[in-house]
Amino acid sequence: MKNSLKVFENIGELLTLEGASRKEGRRVTEADLSIIPDAVLVSHSGKIVWAGPAAKFSKDILAPFGGEREAEFIPLGGRTVTPGFVECHTHLVFAGDRSEEFEWRMQGQSYQDIAAKGGGILSTVRATRTASAPELQVLAQERVDRFVRQGVTTLEIKSGYGLNFETEKKILTVASQLKGPRIVRTYLGPHSRSPDHPDLQSYMERILAHDLPKMAREKLADRVDIYIENGFFDLALSQAFFAQAQELGLPISAHVEQLSDFGGTALALQYRPQSVDHVVYVSGETLQKLAQSETTAVLLPASDLYLKMRYPPARELLDQGARCALSTDFNPGTSPTQDLSLVGVLARVEMKMKLAEVLSAFTVGAAHALGLAGAVGSLTTGKASDFAVLDCSWRELFYAIGRHPVTDTYRAGEKL
Amino acid sequence: MKNSLKVFENIGELLTLEGASRKEGRRVTEADLSIIPDAVLVSHSGKIVWAGPAAKFSKDILAPFGGEREAEFIPLGGRTVTPGFVECHTHLVFAGDRSEEFEWRMQGQSYQDIAAKGGGILSTVRATRTASAPELQVLAQERVDRFVRQGVTTLEIKSGYGLNFETEKKILTVASQLKGPRIVRTYLGPHSRSPDHPDLQSYMERILAHDLPKMAREKLADRVDIYIENGFFDLALSQAFFAQAQELGLPISAHVEQLSDFGGTALALQYRPQSVDHVVYVSGETLQKLAQSETTAVLLPASDLYLKMRYPPARELLDQGARCALSTDFNPGTSPTQDLSLVGVLARVEMKMKLAEVLSAFTVGAAHALGLAGAVGSLTTGKASDFAVLDCSWRELFYAIGRHPVTDTYRAGEKL
Repeated sequence: MKNSLKVFENIGELLTLEGASRKEGRRVTEADLSIIPDAVLVSHSGKIVWAGPAAKFSKDILAPFGGEREAEFIPLGGRTVTPGFVECHTHLVFAGDRSEEFEWRMQGQSYQDIAAKGGGILSTVRATRTASAPELQVLAQERVDRFVRQGVTTLEIKSGYGLNFETEKKILTVASQLKGPRIVRTYLGPHSRSPDHPDLQSYMERILAHDLPKMAREKLADRVDIYIENGFFDLALSQAFFAQAQELGLPISAHVEQLSDFGGTALALQYRPQSVDHVVYVSGETLQKLAQSETTAVLLPASDLYLKMRYPPARELLDQGARCALSTDFNPGTSPTQDLSLVGVLARVEMKMKLAEVLSAFTVGAAHALGLAGAVGSLTTGKASDFAVLDCSWRELFYAIGRHPVTDTYRAGEKL
Repeated sequence: MKNSLKVFENIGELLTLEGASRKEGRRVTEADLSIIPDAVLVSHSGKIVWAGPAAKFSKDILAPFGGEREAEFIPLGGRTVTPGFVECHTHLVFAGDRSEEFEWRMQGQSYQDIAAKGGGILSTVRATRTASAPELQVLAQERVDRFVRQGVTTLEIKSGYGLNFETEKKILTVASQLKGPRIVRTYLGPHSRSPDHPDLQSYMERILAHDLPKMAREKLADRVDIYIENGFFDLALSQAFFAQAQELGLPISAHVEQLSDFGGTALALQYRPQSVDHVVYVSGETLQKLAQSETTAVLLPASDLYLKMRYPPARELLDQGARCALSTDFNPGTSPTQDLSLVGVLARVEMKMKLAEVLSAFTVGAAHALGLAGAVGSLTTGKASDFAVLDCSWRELFYAIGRHPVTDTYRAGEKL
């Protein structure tokens, strides 16, 4: 990859999302997809050095990078190129299977009943604690590959199925060794009550006294997350967590307002988080504050479908100028799907997002959610040569659920 | 295939659905999946001659079919085997693309506006009329293959994008030449207003005087269908169609109660149809009558999702003893998805169907809907050796949308 010069030519339509990137993912329209018909994209050392119409391409463009003789020309057969998708909210490293529990839940059994039968998040925690790192690696790599086949080039992975330092570390270490896309590791120790502690408070004390500082010291995570909700981490515990993360220099994200209007969004915003995720019950003044903040609202409609919840107020957020991202929320409990097309169709059907907004949410928006907006999310000069090649028009994206028209996924100019 | 003797062995779990088949797809419970652990399935000339536990299998079973020397032994590595899925409601043969129209619809434009822009069903009709049979064949085969990869071994295909005899015939002829699964051809001439006729009545007159009798005479279709709805074919026109189809000996199905409680179900039931499809608005006495009839209720929740409609009263139908089938309704307008996992998850989440009911609906129920219950739908002696091989437990089916754990699809004992 170092010093390699590649000319991707005969691109039928190149969606650079330059406009969306310039607007930082806010109030994005179709024009902001910045579509170039019959385009060429030049990549050097994994980054874009030129992108434009074939008619304006000349060999002189290659001169500063060694010239034509150094270049590899890769014809893309008139296909469509979009920025690689950024999956910004997943819980991908876990062991065990909870498909049976889904049946119980759908047939009306309560979380309490399911927990009593050995189900729920703690069943995943047991299986993940027991699994060896190599076992987790194999399971996780298969899932990563499924994302890559859909054009994903950047993938966020949360811990949170360890609920003790050792297993949280194991999960984040496995995450960092996965092959294919860029990986962003998020420490989600405060995901739930830990079986090793009598209550949430004592677990949080352990996190603050030991786990979180050690995560920072050993550079095991790129950012942190917490589940703020009635019955999970309350506002006081969350505030203590945010304060310490900020002190340690770890960027913040948070699960907020998924099941109720609990106040997590308003609290989190005081700490300038990269993202607040779910925001199903956000409204009124808090919604406005969020829309005007630098924080990205990460919308996760697949889990809303699986939980048979309502959907987040995407239209209101977007119309107020919020930057939104979309993601699968892939996890073994509430969103077992890895299907980006499902998420996009739910966004369009249930949340009335426009296709251009969906595309921006999965690229520019999600890049912002991970603090990577300067590096990925659009196909503009200086950013990574991370892109998906499609065998159809971009208008067919996020339309036929289960159809993934991605023929190739490139990261830093290399085919994955 | 003729006289070929195959022994599929080392089946981890064999779901024969013998119980569901015996109950003709009514009041199906998990016990009716008739699961045999560590099983063997013996196929001769494409049909099942024995299925049971490995412990009860002996070489003597093969004697009537040429004995062990004639047999091919195929180890399935402990994987799961289910009956092949029966897709009983698709509009798979068409040309053109309506993804752009989806955006217009989601953003609130009316059918009238969309039609005025050249969208709607007539845009598919134009493209399908223009396309040559070989062109249609290529498009359709790709879609068929996508179904086969999901374990589909029987596939119903409707015409209805011709709206004149010539193109309806072209569609049905293309359908009959598709490779892979068993194909059931349904004549759906009365799908919509025809551009060649001033009104629905004059088109129906043409159908009754010419198209339908010719379809029967030339054996171009296995069954017929009609779209009964406010603004489409009314009850009087539908009745005339049913009467003639019955006279011609063509089995009947009908699109009913998709958008309103229009009376299609009650009318159709007088003609003992194989299936009534959609039934979103069926209720009360008609629902009871349907539940007690020999007719299968075909539920199509993917189109309900794409249209952002309500879902059919599956729970009430099932609890009243109705036989239900599920299908994608794959078509270029209201249900562009071919994803069986989506349909099954919507059935479970939105319609509270149990997993066993979903499995039965996609096999035994759908086989009944096509009048093929004697031939396919369960893995019992005398039926076709049509099955799907899964790399996971059956409990993981219809769970993670977009994940298709089918490793192989067999029709009549031959791998597709």
